[in-house]
Amino acid sequence: MSGRSDDMMRVEVDSLGTVQVPRDRLWGAQTQRALENFPQGEGMPVPIVRAMCRIKGAAARVNARLGLVPQAVATLVDRAARGGVGGHLDEHFPLSIWQSGSGTQTNMNVNEVLANRAAQLAGEEPGRKTPVHPNDHVNRCQSTNDVFPAAMHMATADALASGVIPTAEALSAELAARAEAWSGIVKIGRTHLMDAVPITLGQEFSGYAAQVDAATEGLRRALTPLWELPLGGTAVGTGLNAHPEFARLVIDELARETGYPFIPARNRFALIAAHDALGGVSAAMRTLACALNKIANDIRWLASGPACGIGELRLPANEPGSSIMPGKVNPSQCEVLCMACMQVVGLDAVVAAACAQGNFELNVCKPLIAFDVLTQCRILAESTASFTARAVVGLEPDEGRIAAHVSRSLMLVTALAPVVGYDVAARVAKFAQERHVSLREACVALDVLSGEEFDAIVRPLDMVGPLPGD
Amino acid sequence: MSGRSDDMMRVEVDSLGTVQVPRDRLWGAQTQRALENFPQGEGMPVPIVRAMCRIKGAAARVNARLGLVPQAVATLVDRAARGGVGGHLDEHFPLSIWQSGSGTQTNMNVNEVLANRAAQLAGEEPGRKTPVHPNDHVNRCQSTNDVFPAAMHMATADALASGVIPTAEALSAELAARAEAWSGIVKIGRTHLMDAVPITLGQEFSGYAAQVDAATEGLRRALTPLWELPLGGTAVGTGLNAHPEFARLVIDELARETGYPFIPARNRFALIAAHDALGGVSAAMRTLACALNKIANDIRWLASGPACGIGELRLPANEPGSSIMPGKVNPSQCEVLCMACMQVVGLDAVVAAACAQGNFELNVCKPLIAFDVLTQCRILAESTASFTARAVVGLEPDEGRIAAHVSRSLMLVTALAPVVGYDVAARVAKFAQERHVSLREACVALDVLSGEEFDAIVRPLDMVGPLPGD
Amino acid sequence: MSGRSDDMMRVEVDSLGTVQVPRDRLWGAQTQRALENFPQGEGMPVPIVRAMCRIKGAAARVNARLGLVPQAVATLVDRAARGGVGGHLDEHFPLSIWQSGSGTQTNMNVNEVLANRAAQLAGEEPGRKTPVHPNDHVNRCQSTNDVFPAAMHMATADALASGVIPTAEALSAELAARAEAWSGIVKIGRTHLMDAVPITLGQEFSGYAAQVDAATEGLRRALTPLWELPLGGTAVGTGLNAHPEFARLVIDELARETGYPFIPARNRFALIAAHDALGGVSAAMRTLACALNKIANDIRWLASGPACGIGELRLPANEPGSSIMPGKVNPSQCEVLCMACMQVVGLDAVVAAACAQGNFELNVCKPLIAFDVLTQCRILAESTASFTARAVVGLEPDEGRIAAHVSRSLMLVTALAPVVGYDVAARVAKFAQERHVSLREACVALDVLSGEEFDAIVRPLDMVGPLPGD
Amino acid sequence: MSGRSDDMMRVEVDSLGTVQVPRDRLWGAQTQRALENFPQGEGMPVPIVRAMCRIKGAAARVNARLGLVPQAVATLVDRAARGGVGGHLDEHFPLSIWQSGSGTQTNMNVNEVLANRAAQLAGEEPGRKTPVHPNDHVNRCQSTNDVFPAAMHMATADALASGVIPTAEALSAELAARAEAWSGIVKIGRTHLMDAVPITLGQEFSGYAAQVDAATEGLRRALTPLWELPLGGTAVGTGLNAHPEFARLVIDELARETGYPFIPARNRFALIAAHDALGGVSAAMRTLACALNKIANDIRWLASGPACGIGELRLPANEPGSSIMPGKVNPSQCEVLCMACMQVVGLDAVVAAACAQGNFELNVCKPLIAFDVLTQCRILAESTASFTARAVVGLEPDEGRIAAHVSRSLMLVTALAPVVGYDVAARVAKFAQERHVSLREACVALDVLSGEEFDAIVRPLDMVGPLPGD
Repeated sequence: MSGRSDDMMRVEVDSLGTVQVPRDRLWGAQTQRALENFPQGEGMPVPIVRAMCRIKGAAARVNARLGLVPQAVATLVDRAARGGVGGHLDEHFPLSIWQSGSGTQTNMNVNEVLANRAAQLAGEEPGRKTPVHPNDHVNRCQSTNDVFPAAMHMATADALASGVIPTAEALSAELAARAEAWSGIVKIGRTHLMDAVPITLGQEFSGYAAQVDAATEGLRRALTPLWELPLGGTAVGTGLNAHPEFARLVIDELARETGYPFIPARNRFALIAAHDALGGVSAAMRTLACALNKIANDIRWLASGPACGIGELRLPANEPGSSIMPGKVNPSQCEVLCMACMQVVGLDAVVAAACAQGNFELNVCKPLIAFDVLTQCRILAESTASFTARAVVGLEPDEGRIAAHVSRSLMLVTALAPVVGYDVAARVAKFAQERHVSLREACVALDVLSGEEFDAIVRPLDMVGPLPGD
Repeated sequence: MSGRSDDMMRVEVDSLGTVQVPRDRLWGAQTQRALENFPQGEGMPVPIVRAMCRIKGAAARVNARLGLVPQAVATLVDRAARGGVGGHLDEHFPLSIWQSGSGTQTNMNVNEVLANRAAQLAGEEPGRKTPVHPNDHVNRCQSTNDVFPAAMHMATADALASGVIPTAEALSAELAARAEAWSGIVKIGRTHLMDAVPITLGQEFSGYAAQVDAATEGLRRALTPLWELPLGGTAVGTGLNAHPEFARLVIDELARETGYPFIPARNRFALIAAHDALGGVSAAMRTLACALNKIANDIRWLASGPACGIGELRLPANEPGSSIMPGKVNPSQCEVLCMACMQVVGLDAVVAAACAQGNFELNVCKPLIAFDVLTQCRILAESTASFTARAVVGLEPDEGRIAAHVSRSLMLVTALAPVVGYDVAARVAKFAQERHVSLREACVALDVLSGEEFDAIVRPLDMVGPLPGD
Repeated sequence: MSGRSDDMMRVEVDSLGTVQVPRDRLWGAQTQRALENFPQGEGMPVPIVRAMCRIKGAAARVNARLGLVPQAVATLVDRAARGGVGGHLDEHFPLSIWQSGSGTQTNMNVNEVLANRAAQLAGEEPGRKTPVHPNDHVNRCQSTNDVFPAAMHMATADALASGVIPTAEALSAELAARAEAWSGIVKIGRTHLMDAVPITLGQEFSGYAAQVDAATEGLRRALTPLWELPLGGTAVGTGLNAHPEFARLVIDELARETGYPFIPARNRFALIAAHDALGGVSAAMRTLACALNKIANDIRWLASGPACGIGELRLPANEPGSSIMPGKVNPSQCEVLCMACMQVVGLDAVVAAACAQGNFELNVCKPLIAFDVLTQCRILAESTASFTARAVVGLEPDEGRIAAHVSRSLMLVTALAPVVGYDVAARVAKFAQERHVSLREACVALDVLSGEEFDAIVRPLDMVGPLPGD
Repeated sequence: MSGRSDDMMRVEVDSLGTVQVPRDRLWGAQTQRALENFPQGEGMPVPIVRAMCRIKGAAARVNARLGLVPQAVATLVDRAARGGVGGHLDEHFPLSIWQSGSGTQTNMNVNEVLANRAAQLAGEEPGRKTPVHPNDHVNRCQSTNDVFPAAMHMATADALASGVIPTAEALSAELAARAEAWSGIVKIGRTHLMDAVPITLGQEFSGYAAQVDAATEGLRRALTPLWELPLGGTAVGTGLNAHPEFARLVIDELARETGYPFIPARNRFALIAAHDALGGVSAAMRTLACALNKIANDIRWLASGPACGIGELRLPANEPGSSIMPGKVNPSQCEVLCMACMQVVGLDAVVAAACAQGNFELNVCKPLIAFDVLTQCRILAESTASFTARAVVGLEPDEGRIAAHVSRSLMLVTALAPVVGYDVAARVAKFAQERHVSLREACVALDVLSGEEFDAIVRPLDMVGPLPGD
């Protein structure tokens, strides 16, 4: 903060001494020290800070009710906290995730800002710790160690419930709509990238929708453990310095305010010392990412060409695809989704590694876990939404090409196997491929079946199973 | 197979021609080609082969009932298959996982062995494809593409339900027993590896048990999608060449035989083209592995020393620990569990990558996924069982050392904060640390509290929350 | 861009039609489309954009020299590009990495901005593609497919050479200084977390310095392939539409300007279709991260306590460590470094996955690879620098505690083994531990050695090998 | 070992007491305890055990020379060790990698077996520790902590130098041969899976060869740090109980015997406490795996079809591809290689995680790292060799199909851009695609060029750059 003249700064105090803080910022000594002591970079996610503000407001109200904090102080804190929840204090939370592994600096940042903001609301100068003290009032009955993981659960649950899950559902609905619309389009199936027996385009897309649905169910199951909050545990889970009623009351407040079914942790020690619930959420996002990767990949391959690829689908042409090849259009939405999925898988590996590294009463990878899980949520939701809107919605089958492929494939021979046996059918297929004749011609030439018999048995439309309406 | 004299070999045939096969082996041409074409190494897991035999037996019975295979043939196949399920044919399944990504060679291996074994049972020579044909009879209404993933689900479900889950439950029970037994032992808590406020040893172990329980719940949830089997889908999921009743009937047989609630897949396309259910199982094992890593790590640190570490726990001395340091005993069971957990996490990453790589109607990483998931199951179950029996059961607290640590820690100062405020309490702690005096002495010296007041407030036993029986 | 009145916008054109662009921004139609078509979020790294500007400037000069672009146009582009390199155009590059997997939108963004900026410099209106055309002039002899990977190499090489490597060297120097300073401090060694034979604190730190040095050597080796640039390859590596002299001339310019030894790619196809060189850089950073994790971990454990841990080192107290425990100081710099290392390892996994996923002539994970590699560079350099300055430099040994530990350990018994044999020495150790007597007393009691003999053999200072000056 | 009658067992002793050992096995008490205490499963890799035997033999010779072990004893140990190196004692090393994280049990296993084998050679009964004692003689001047990592380096260096590297070189040679042979085959390039400008098949394969070559260079660079061996460091690196000349002499022996340039470690502390050199080797194998994955993937896509895919290459038909689709041939060698690469990438992640987890003087993930690195070596070498022999060598281009694709692609329009400008060229391409006319027809229709002008400009053969011989 060199170069700032003195009247732009004010003095703040903590247990290590005094610190100069910019006058137009509401943070205090510990935040300022953190700015100087820790590398900047990846910012503490806004949803974490807002969830912490929400906890602080609820805590103030409960502490007043329990007689632990004067009502007037609590009212000030609650008003200040409401501003934080509403995003009006965002500029006062400047810290990055590169801080103490418990999130202590951010908890102190929130305590300091709310205390100073409360002072302002009371018409006082910030920085005096009066009428509101950051630790003794704002942090009352709390510790970083229970507040921060509670905020992790709250922010992640919301990012899933209001972001990832509905976005996945919207994609699934669009895929299912195409499965329905294209249920009569018979196409060649492909296994090992090789021509196989027929399938309908609708069946393929029903598989995609089923994958997304299953992954969404997994996300919903992964949400359940997030409802548990370790509030009331304070420093190590024992609840030292917290009123015995605090946890229940404050969590009821949070549930009421957010509409989410938050409950006190069944075991607070486990939720402070470990983050397996977030590891589970991360894994569930990974499963979705793997499914999306498969789907986006299939779609870009099916749309490959236009002339020299598979070319059975046409993607919308959203933008010019090349700086040098005029007229080129690329599957860029698929590429974005695939890249996003790779990033989700990698961040998930970080979350798992971080979850495994707790020691004794505390896991000290909290800011990293929070950042990576919330980043996964954001990029999954955004890339999925974009893919749905700009790739799936405008997708078109090229029915001519699809039909040409079906008619060309030798794997229709499979329909012969139950009639003539696998070995004879294999001989027919080999003959047809080597002589460049049709399966029908091969059957006749090898005296396996007459042409009429062949026509009665090999009917692509019958090979895809019962269609809707059959 | 050079060097073998001719009378040790017999001739087998497939669609590519003839092949020499060892006379004392029941496999056929395709298996023999696979032995020659593919690198040996990691063997196809035995549970996969046995599950496939079980499917083949059930399929034979159902095919007979549906009139698709003569009853006599079906009976022979069923008898042969029962031998396979019982492990009596293991030596005839020599292939590794390094084969076609669908598991085709192993499916043909099973078809060939059961056909040849059935021929033997009928008093015939193997290798003639009569009276039982590997494709037309043993594989009837099936394809590798539906049989292999069904076997993956069956084998994995069993490995979880009869291996990983009960082993985790047994560990949890032992941890919970210690949580109960040690609920009165007050010890120092540690956060950031630094002395923190007190906790009981029982509370710490209750957190461990809670982690294992939560992970076990996750495993049980992950089991659910495994009950779905894509049987009846044949090559691409459409059910081409399969009787419409086949899937339901054969899966009923499998459920009855195994006692597991197997059901037909809701969407067979998804279960052939992707393996998200197995990715989910793998992720659930990863969560357990992360929890176990934390627990094993804590225990070895708490047992570190004996003289120059933490030394609050004593691990059983199972074996001499050093080839050069006489008398050394090491936390080897913890080390084994931690290594096993790392391997599980890495194999899980492979499974996720493999799950993301399907194309169109087929994921061709099936043998790899099967191998890695079943390896995860095995090493998790075995290392957990060993850890439970040889580290947890014999674990002992060193109560003298535990008590000495509690009495020495300055973090008891936390109990003062609600009374004298955070800032004054911090001053007391700093004074005590710098002058090497006790907190009590610091309070008196700084005129914060009298000795009697201090004694009334700072009571470690009261700092750990209500104990059982309070 | 709704809500903007028309006079704040201007019209830009591309091959798909017209687009409205904010009047105060220099980008064109394709950038604007990209803003609308792609999810925002992770921004394209500034070093990539600046490297691309540098390439464009050099290309303009070379194209003029080769007679492919009028000198006046080239001069305008060069001036505009210089502004971009200097960071004066940063606000005109708004795109995220979530775009076409080749980086096409960013290449067009750069082309458009430089063309428009050049127009401004010529006193013309932007948006008219005259006097400078984004494709025909700025992009001349180039394609996204060769420019973008060249920029990836240039930006990464600089981030390593001017960031990660010198930071690691500075850390190593500090570690080596401590190894030297503390070469006479004999302490207990620890293996398996258990007391082992003595070592000096200096020896321990020499091991840390050696790890960092080896990792730095690895980084330098990984730099080598980055000097190769695929410029001149254009769309697929063949050099279509590029002058045959273009690659050599433009790369000479870049080498001259930057001082780095850039050379034309030995095989341009490989450098457009794959990014193994960046995968190698990422892996080399991972090795550094693993080493740093070990070092930071050791240091926080050695500093654990202060009363109930190992406590052989004291970390500087940079900030208050707890919102509830007054006086607590935590190893936060170690925690930051460990979290940063985990993130580096995870991002490295993404880079590896992305490197494996190219198809045919192009790897379409370029923006993701660029982002993750440059993020790895940044967080490694920043967290290492912070750790060096705020944890290593102020580190202090607690010599009293170190000495107490040495005197307490039973593993000094190892010195007896060559004299009395492993088995007898083990008996001595066991006796001493069980009876709580010293090794010396045990020797005498068991009639193994006299006290004098013991004293002559068991001398911790002699057990650590020759010290400096011996 | 229940059920064995007493005369099949003999008694062995260690510092914890007596143990029954099968009479026909040469191991001793500590091995037997390990069999009972640790989960079986993944076996300690044979190359590790043999490298340890080699060290023991060399150590015996050196110890005799230094006067530390009687010459007669040393000669017996050396003879026994030579048997171990030659593989004649493999059945006496039954332990798995699931043991103490230092490999202590395997070091003791080797010590015990060699001592007992030496006794046999001397005509004595095993189990008496005379005339050869496992610790005092076989392990003299050694500890598990320096022997085991030395064996890890020796075994890995050999697996690379005699396995992975030559196999990769053989693949590269075959790829380069095809690059040469196919240098005149002009084909369509593909970027973003979409048709792009032409390239030759030879250029594509030159890129593959270049990737393999670069990865092989990386492997060779990664070998260098493996030549350093920490022998002579004993328990923690200080060399306690080792003669000061021991390290140099024994490593000279090992270098002479193996032909590899082994040298004493520059810093032994780092090589016992960390395994960054092996992490680097693992990463270099990952880079090769990523390159191979790209190559195998490209080849299977180029060979996809035969009728409904790209179909520009034909893979050898090594075996029938389907149990239900007669005549199907699949790219199974590509699939094996891709699966192997995924496994390599996953095991590499384990190695990295394990490398980051050392504590103080020892990394206790040694057996896991050894197993995973050697497994990576094996499956990479074997799957690459199989891919080379069974996929690359027999690969054939389908020149008719290749030519048809080139003639069909609209991206030849790129050749127009330098002549008519990007915007006009884009208009031509769009017109041609929408009206289903050729580019030539579009040029004429839009009055852009005459047919003759078009023919002079758009010449696929000229678009691929100078060909060999031009």
